[in-house]
Amino acid sequence: MSRKPGKLYVITGPSGTGKGCICKEILKEIDNEFSVSMTTRPAREGEVHGKDYYFVSEEEFLANVEKGNFLEHARVFDNLYGTPKDMVMKQLVKGRNIILDIDVQGALQVKKAMPEAIMIFLLPPSLDELRRRLEGRATDSQDVIEKRLGQALNEIKLIGEYDYYVVNDDIEKAVSEVKSIMTAEKCRVPDKVTEIIKNYE
Amino acid sequence: MSRKPGKLYVITGPSGTGKGCICKEILKEIDNEFSVSMTTRPAREGEVHGKDYYFVSEEEFLANVEKGNFLEHARVFDNLYGTPKDMVMKQLVKGRNIILDIDVQGALQVKKAMPEAIMIFLLPPSLDELRRRLEGRATDSQDVIEKRLGQALNEIKLIGEYDYYVVNDDIEKAVSEVKSIMTAEKCRVPDKVTEIIKNYE
Repeated sequence: MSRKPGKLYVITGPSGTGKGCICKEILKEIDNEFSVSMTTRPAREGEVHGKDYYFVSEEEFLANVEKGNFLEHARVFDNLYGTPKDMVMKQLVKGRNIILDIDVQGALQVKKAMPEAIMIFLLPPSLDELRRRLEGRATDSQDVIEKRLGQALNEIKLIGEYDYYVVNDDIEKAVSEVKSIMTAEKCRVPDKVTEIIKNYE
Repeated sequence: MSRKPGKLYVITGPSGTGKGCICKEILKEIDNEFSVSMTTRPAREGEVHGKDYYFVSEEEFLANVEKGNFLEHARVFDNLYGTPKDMVMKQLVKGRNIILDIDVQGALQVKKAMPEAIMIFLLPPSLDELRRRLEGRATDSQDVIEKRLGQALNEIKLIGEYDYYVVNDDIEKAVSEVKSIMTAEKCRVPDKVTEIIKNYE
């Protein structure tokens, strides 16, 4: 059978839910890769253009915004970050899945730009548990933690925008569920079925 | 979190594709069970009413047809067979998945009666391989095999009616793909999301 195109998976969820950990595991699978973002932030020592980021000038970045060439973009402090659509498309036609580990704001932008993206929402087991995790990281002040928890609830209320949800009460189980979602999506009957039928004619 | 309702999985495919083998493996999972059919055929020795079949008179069967109480039904030679909708619903609300191992005709009837059923189509690796399997079974004459192959192609042409397809070129892989589909469907964001959100409020 001819090679199936890859799919774009958007993995998001409230801060502290464990997106990063889960994505790292998913990336170990052969057909999956991260998308490389474009940024105006200067490269740090050891960072490679085209691998860690595409490092561009603010002018070039804004020209790409103008052309609608981002699936999503955002300003973080003084720098711009964005996911270039053409790079993602290039990988998808090669049959590779692109994993986008992204915050909820960005995730909803991607869905708008590419409705066929598969949207996975990671949930904490409870807000109490999320509080414990955020406190355990010890990187945020109590004020910031309260703000994050309020934001988490607001983000969870938008769960209807997503295709799938995975409760991260056990990292191994959560990873296995995300992998199952990806396997199932590979088995999904596409809109155009002629490619399948012609294998039997 | 509150228990999710089960889902109805319709597993179908051309004769000889290995539905039976795959369903047997899927049934070993704790939350899955077969639906019990209703039939007018007399019980064979050892068969238990309510476990192997619901054995009923032709009159009772036809009354059920009249009431629209079947997800699908068909006459096979002198006997009527059908899948009672209320039995299926009763299991689903208990959180159990119902697996329907059924021919393609019946599968499309079920989809009409219950559009939320999850439709999985099993494909042979190729029609040549399907021919080898049918010949290997040695239960059918060459004429019947040719008829089955023609029918298989016609059935495959309707693959657009299904949600998922699984190529049975390796039984273990096929079973694992069906299991992944079931896990993914458990992770699917439901139409009513209030049940999820209220766990976080």
